[in-house]
Amino acid sequence: MNQDYIKPDEWSIIEEDFDPGRVKSSESLFSIGNGAMGQRANFEEHYSGPSFQGSYIGGVYYPDKTKVGWWKNGYPEYFAKVLNAPNWIGINVFVDEEQLDLYTCKKVDNFRRELNMKEGYLARSFEAELPNGVEIRVEAVRFLSIVNDELGAIKFEVTPLNRNAEIRFDPYLDGSITNTDANWEERFWETLDVRAEEERAFIVSRTLKTHFNVGTYMQSQVFQNGQKLDLQPEVRKNEDRVSFKYQVSAKKGETAGIIKFAGYVSDMNHNKTELIQAANENLDAAIASGFDKLRTEQKEAWAKIWEMADITISGDVMAQQGIRFNIFQLNQTYLGKDERLNIGPKGFTGEKYGGSTYWDTEAYCIPFYMATKDQQVARNLLTYRFNHLKKAQENAEKLGFGNGAALYPMVTMNGEESHNEWEITFEEIHRNGAMVFAIYNYVRFTGDFDYIPEMGLEVMIAIARFWHQRANFSEPKNKYVILGVTGPNEYENNVHNNWYTNYIAKWCIEYCLEMIDKVKDGYEDDYHRVMSHVSLNEGEIAEWREVAEQMYFPYSEKLGVYLQQDGFLDKEIIPVDQLDKKHRPINQKWSWDRILRSCYIKQADVLQGFYFFEDHFSKEDLEKHFDFYEPLTVHESSLSPCVHSIQAAVLGRMEQAYQFYLRTSRLDLDDYNKEVEQGCHITSMAGTWMSIVEGFGGMRVVDDKLSFKPQIPEQWKAYSFKVNFRDRILKVDVSAEKTEFSLEGEDAIDILVNGKKLEVKPDMKLSV
Amino acid sequence: MNQDYIKPDEWSIIEEDFDPGRVKSSESLFSIGNGAMGQRANFEEHYSGPSFQGSYIGGVYYPDKTKVGWWKNGYPEYFAKVLNAPNWIGINVFVDEEQLDLYTCKKVDNFRRELNMKEGYLARSFEAELPNGVEIRVEAVRFLSIVNDELGAIKFEVTPLNRNAEIRFDPYLDGSITNTDANWEERFWETLDVRAEEERAFIVSRTLKTHFNVGTYMQSQVFQNGQKLDLQPEVRKNEDRVSFKYQVSAKKGETAGIIKFAGYVSDMNHNKTELIQAANENLDAAIASGFDKLRTEQKEAWAKIWEMADITISGDVMAQQGIRFNIFQLNQTYLGKDERLNIGPKGFTGEKYGGSTYWDTEAYCIPFYMATKDQQVARNLLTYRFNHLKKAQENAEKLGFGNGAALYPMVTMNGEESHNEWEITFEEIHRNGAMVFAIYNYVRFTGDFDYIPEMGLEVMIAIARFWHQRANFSEPKNKYVILGVTGPNEYENNVHNNWYTNYIAKWCIEYCLEMIDKVKDGYEDDYHRVMSHVSLNEGEIAEWREVAEQMYFPYSEKLGVYLQQDGFLDKEIIPVDQLDKKHRPINQKWSWDRILRSCYIKQADVLQGFYFFEDHFSKEDLEKHFDFYEPLTVHESSLSPCVHSIQAAVLGRMEQAYQFYLRTSRLDLDDYNKEVEQGCHITSMAGTWMSIVEGFGGMRVVDDKLSFKPQIPEQWKAYSFKVNFRDRILKVDVSAEKTEFSLEGEDAIDILVNGKKLEVKPDMKLSV
Repeated sequence: MNQDYIKPDEWSIIEEDFDPGRVKSSESLFSIGNGAMGQRANFEEHYSGPSFQGSYIGGVYYPDKTKVGWWKNGYPEYFAKVLNAPNWIGINVFVDEEQLDLYTCKKVDNFRRELNMKEGYLARSFEAELPNGVEIRVEAVRFLSIVNDELGAIKFEVTPLNRNAEIRFDPYLDGSITNTDANWEERFWETLDVRAEEERAFIVSRTLKTHFNVGTYMQSQVFQNGQKLDLQPEVRKNEDRVSFKYQVSAKKGETAGIIKFAGYVSDMNHNKTELIQAANENLDAAIASGFDKLRTEQKEAWAKIWEMADITISGDVMAQQGIRFNIFQLNQTYLGKDERLNIGPKGFTGEKYGGSTYWDTEAYCIPFYMATKDQQVARNLLTYRFNHLKKAQENAEKLGFGNGAALYPMVTMNGEESHNEWEITFEEIHRNGAMVFAIYNYVRFTGDFDYIPEMGLEVMIAIARFWHQRANFSEPKNKYVILGVTGPNEYENNVHNNWYTNYIAKWCIEYCLEMIDKVKDGYEDDYHRVMSHVSLNEGEIAEWREVAEQMYFPYSEKLGVYLQQDGFLDKEIIPVDQLDKKHRPINQKWSWDRILRSCYIKQADVLQGFYFFEDHFSKEDLEKHFDFYEPLTVHESSLSPCVHSIQAAVLGRMEQAYQFYLRTSRLDLDDYNKEVEQGCHITSMAGTWMSIVEGFGGMRVVDDKLSFKPQIPEQWKAYSFKVNFRDRILKVDVSAEKTEFSLEGEDAIDILVNGKKLEVKPDMKLSV
Repeated sequence: MNQDYIKPDEWSIIEEDFDPGRVKSSESLFSIGNGAMGQRANFEEHYSGPSFQGSYIGGVYYPDKTKVGWWKNGYPEYFAKVLNAPNWIGINVFVDEEQLDLYTCKKVDNFRRELNMKEGYLARSFEAELPNGVEIRVEAVRFLSIVNDELGAIKFEVTPLNRNAEIRFDPYLDGSITNTDANWEERFWETLDVRAEEERAFIVSRTLKTHFNVGTYMQSQVFQNGQKLDLQPEVRKNEDRVSFKYQVSAKKGETAGIIKFAGYVSDMNHNKTELIQAANENLDAAIASGFDKLRTEQKEAWAKIWEMADITISGDVMAQQGIRFNIFQLNQTYLGKDERLNIGPKGFTGEKYGGSTYWDTEAYCIPFYMATKDQQVARNLLTYRFNHLKKAQENAEKLGFGNGAALYPMVTMNGEESHNEWEITFEEIHRNGAMVFAIYNYVRFTGDFDYIPEMGLEVMIAIARFWHQRANFSEPKNKYVILGVTGPNEYENNVHNNWYTNYIAKWCIEYCLEMIDKVKDGYEDDYHRVMSHVSLNEGEIAEWREVAEQMYFPYSEKLGVYLQQDGFLDKEIIPVDQLDKKHRPINQKWSWDRILRSCYIKQADVLQGFYFFEDHFSKEDLEKHFDFYEPLTVHESSLSPCVHSIQAAVLGRMEQAYQFYLRTSRLDLDDYNKEVEQGCHITSMAGTWMSIVEGFGGMRVVDDKLSFKPQIPEQWKAYSFKVNFRDRILKVDVSAEKTEFSLEGEDAIDILVNGKKLEVKPDMKLSV
C-alpha cells in the first residue's frame, strides 16, 4: 500500500517529499489530459534522474511494424502505437548559470505535488539548494484547457532565497521525440518546419507512414515580482528544436516567473497548410485572456463536469479520493466530443498496450459515459464502431469469413486489427458480442431506438453473420459448437464452447433478428435501405435461427452450473485461497502452460455473461455460479473486481462487495500491481464507477425506468451519485438509514426502488 | 517438378545451364559437409547476384536474444542459432584485371555443376565471356575431407580461350560474417587475430557470449599448365580479412590453376592457445599429401560409407537419385563420431529453425544410423541426451515440476531450451516420450541392454516423473488426463488428452518400471547407484503405476477409433480431397485459427503412435485408424509422408506407399515446398530411408531377430539395402520375383521372412 506516498485528500492527489524512486510512478498518477491531448506529469525543467517522458495527442498514431517470434498467417503487418508527441512543456531553468535539476540538487525541501481534480490543474512547489549553493523556491502550475482543447498553460516561478541570482528561463519545443514503446527503435516523427517569430515558436512535425501533421507551438511571458518584463529573448534553433533564452535578475526574495502558453494543432482539425495560423489564433486568444482567466475558465469547466459526474462518499476519505481519481482520469481521457476518438487502456498516461480501443469501451466504459454525460457521448462511442464496420468486415475476410461478416478488432486505432497474439487476435472473438451488447445497453438506457435503424442494425447483421459462419455443427453433440476461442478469461486459450462466447453469440443473433423485425415494423425506409444493402434473405435468416436455437452450452448436471468451456471439470479444482501465496500472482510466478491447464480464472468469464444478461437468470443461479467461479478467480485483470463487486452486492454480500470495490478504486493510487510507472489503468476506472452505481446503488434499467436497490458498505456513512437518464438528472443519496432521490429539471420521473414504483418530482426529495 | 533442373543420374546431382534464379536453390542442394563442418555450394569467386552465403561448424552456436511479440512466463532468454562461420572458400579471380562474376558475364556456356555423391566432391565447370571480351574456361572442384574433418580443399582452374591473359587469384579468409537468421541483426563473431605467415593465413575468431574460439586457415598453391609456380604473393590484411594476390600469365589455351587447402580448427577439439599450431599441422599434412591424394582418400572413405549405407533401386533413376541424395546428405550432416553433435533439421545447408536437435533425431534419424553404422553411433546419439539430463531437469523446474522430473527441450544446442512459441515450447511435450522410445528402439535393435543401467534408466526415471506430475486426475472421467498439450500434429494447440501423448506417457512409465525391475535383477550395483541417486521409493512407484493404469484415452465407440484428442469429432470432418485446391497448402492460405479449428492434420499423430507401437495393435486396428486419419492429413510437414508410406505398405497398399515415398525422397530435389533456397530438410531424409527399409522391405526387429515382409513398387525392377544388425551385415535384394538375403561375416543369422524363420549363412544367398 502506498498510503504514505499519496496523501489522503477528498479532492486532490498529493505527494509530499521528493523521492527519485517515485518519480516515474508520480508521472503516471499526476498525468493531466483534456480528452484531446494529455501528458505524463514530467517536470518542466531538466531532470536527469529516471523518468518516462510522455505527451500524447488523441487519434494520432503510428503503425509500428509487427514484432513476433514466429509469424502466423493472418497476423496484421503492423501494431498501431500511441505516439509520444513533441514536447512543449519544457522550460530549462538556470540559476546563476547552474541548471536546475532536482536529481542533482544538494537538498530538496518541502516538495509538494498536487493534482487538483476539482479545478483540473497540476501544481508543484519545493525549495532546493543547487550545487552552486543558491537556494531557491519554485512554484509551478500547469493545466491542459478543457475549454480550448488545443491549449495548455504553465506558470513557473523561481525565488532565490539566500542571495541575489540571475534566473534564466529557456522555454523550448522539442520535436526529437521517440516512443518508449517501439518495436524496432525507429523514429516515428519527422520535423517539417521549425520557426521562431518574435516571442512565438512553432514546430511542424509529421508522423511517418500515417502522415499526421501536427503543429506544436508556444509563447512565453516573463515576469519579475509579478510585473511582466519586455525582454527580447535570444533564439536557438536546430532541425528539431527551438528555444528562447530569457534572463531575469532577481534579488534575494524576489520572484522571477514565466508563463508559457503552448499546445498542439493537428490536421485532424485544421487544414495542413493552416496549422501555424491556427496556432497563432490559439496564442492570440490565450494572451488576450491571460493565465489567470484561463485557469478560472478551467475551474468552471471542471465544476460542470463534477456537477454531473461526482460521487461523494462520506466517512471514508480514501474511498472518496479513489472514486474521484477514477472519474477525473476518465474525463481527462475522453470527453466524448469527437467520434473519432476512444478510450485507450492507458489514456494519456503511458504507451503500454498501444492502440486506443479495446472491448473495454463497450463492456465497461459506455455505462459511465451514458450516465454522466449527454447521451450523444455514448452515441459517439457507438458511431466509432459503425464507422469501422467496413474494416471489421475486411478483418473477418482475412480470417476466411465472407458475405459481409464482421469481426471487430481486438485492438485498434483506425478500425484495422493491430494485435498479434494468435490466441487473442484470432480467438478472443467474444469482443464482437460486446459491440452488440453496447448497442442494446445504449438503447435500453437512452431510449434512443433511432440508433438501430440509422447505424446499429448493419453492425448487428454483420456480427450475426460472423457468428453464424463461425459456429459449426457437431455430430456427437447434435448441436452447434464454437471451437477454438479465448473467452474473457485470457488464462484459457483455444478452448471449445466457451460458455460466455456461445451465449453472447446466440444472443447476438436473436437480438439482431428481433431488431430486424422492429425496424421492419417501424422504420420501413430504413428497413429497405439496410436490407438491400446487406442482401439478407429468409434462407440465411433461417440458418441463423437454427444456429442460435441449437447452440450448445457446456453444463454440469452434477454441479448445476454452466461450464466455462468443454472439459473444465477435468482440471484440478483447488480454490485460490488454498494456493500458497508464493505462487501469486500466477501470471508472474507460473509458466504459461501451467496457467492454462490450471482452473484459475483471470477475470469474470461465465460471470461476465451473468453480469451482461442478469435478467436471464435467477438470483439462485447467480449465487450458484458465483460460488463456483469466484473462488477460482485470481482477479489478475484490472477489469475483474468490479463485476464481482456488483454481483456480490446483488447477492447481499456487502462486505465482499466492498473488498472488491477497494481493489478496483485505488488500484493505481496504491499501485497494487506494481506497474503504475507505465501508466494508469483507465478503462477499468469505469468499472469502479459501476461498482458504486450498479453495485451498491443497485441501479438498473427495467422497462424504461431506472431501478435501484440501494445498499451501503458499513465502512461508509453515506454516498451519492447522479445519473443523467433521458435528459433528466436524478441524484441519489444513500446512507445506512435511508435513500433520498432528488430530481433536476421540470418533469417528474417514475423510478423503481427495491421493486416498488415511486415518483420523483422536481424540487422535492423522495426519501425511502 | 524440377526435372529439367536437376538431371537424372544414379550417383550425382547435376545441374546444367546457368540460371541466376536457381543459384540459391543450388547452393542448398549442392551443399557439402563432413559431419563436423559444412557449406552451402557458394561459388569460390565473387558473385554479385542473389546468393545465400553459408558455412557452418558443428556444435558452434550463438545464443541469440529471444524475439517475441508478447512475452510469456517461462520463455527462454535466448534461441541457440546455428552460426554462419568465417568464409574460407573464397578465391577472387581476375582476368586481365576484370573480376570474374558469373552474374555480370556477357555469356555463360556449358555451365555444369555436379555433386558427386559417390566420391564426395562438388565440381563446377563453365565457359564464360567476361565484360572485357576475354573468354575463359573454368573448372573447379571442392570437397570437405571426411578423413580429416578439419580440412577442405579446392582446385580452381582458368583457361583463357580467345587470347593470352593475366589471371589473378586472390584467395582469402573472411571473418566478417553475419547470420542471415539473426533476431536483432547483431554480429555474432569478433575477430581476435588476423595473420599471414609466408603462404599461410589464419584468422582467429571468437563467438560473442558463447566464446567458442575458431581458427580459420588457408594455404594456396598456384599452377601453370599443371606446373607449380613459386610465387611470392602480395598480402592484404584488415581487421577481419586476409587475402593473397597471385598473378599468372596464361597464353591462350594454357591453364592457370590454384589449389587452396583450408578449414577450421576450434577449441572444441584443441586448446584455445594452440589453434594456429593445429591449423599448421593440418596444412603440413595436406601439403604433404597433395590435392589428388586427398581426393583419392575422400573417394575411398565415401566408398566405405556407401558400402554399408547404399540403397540401390533399379528401373527408376529418379528414385535412385533421390534415395542416394538423402543418404548422402545424412552422412554429410552427421557421421556419429562426436557425441556432442547432433542432426540439425537443415544440417549444414542453411540456418532456418536454428538449434541442432529436435525430436526428429530420436523419432526419425536413429533407425537410419543404427542400421547403417557401427552401433556406437546410435549410442552416441542417446548419450547426447543423457548428457543433457540435468538441463532437462532444470527446464522442467522452470515450468513448475520438481523431484528430478525432466522435460527435454523442443530445440537445443547445449541441453537448454531455445524455442519460444508457448504452444510448442511448453506444450509439445510428447517429445519427452521419443527420448524413451529411442532407448527402447536402440536396445531392441542392438541388444545393447547395458546402455539402460549405464545411462538410460536415469533418463527414463526423470521422464516418468515428468509424466506422473504432468497428468492429473479428472473427477468426471475418473481417469488421469493430460491437459493442455500440442501433439505431433502441430495444427492443434493446447488440446486435452492428445491420444498419442497420453499413450506414450503411459508407455514411458510402464517401460521404465519394467526396466527398473530388469536392472534390479541383472545389474545390482547399477541398480543401487541409480536408485540412491534418484531417491525413488515404492510409494512414488505406486503413484506412477496408478497414473499409467488409469490413463484416459479418447475413443469413439461409434467409429471404433481412438480420437486424436478430446472433442476431435466436434469438428467439421471433410476429407482433404474435398478441399478446393486454392486452399492448399493450408499453412499458407489459412489463418492460424482456421487451421486450428479444422480437422486437418499436419503430420502423423495418432498414426505416429501406431507406428511406434505397431505391435500393440492389430492390422485391422491400423487399417481403421489409417482410413480415418490419413484422409484428413495434409502432410504439410516433411516428416509426414514416410510414416504413412510405411503404414500403407503394411496394409499392402503399395501404390499409395509408393506415392508417399515419392513425396519424401525428392522433396528437396524437386523442391515441392518451394523453399529449398533456405536449405534442405535433413532429418526427414532418414524417413525416406525408413520408407524403403521398414516400408517396402517390411523390416522389423521381432524377438531379437530381423524380420522382413518384402514388397516392391511396381514401378521398380529391384532394390537392395544393407543392415548392420548386431555386427552382422545383411544385404537384402528385392525384386518382384524374389528376395535374396546375403550375409557378410562369419556367423549365420536367423531371420524372419513373412513370419517364417530362416537361416542366412555366410557366403550363400538365401532366396525367398
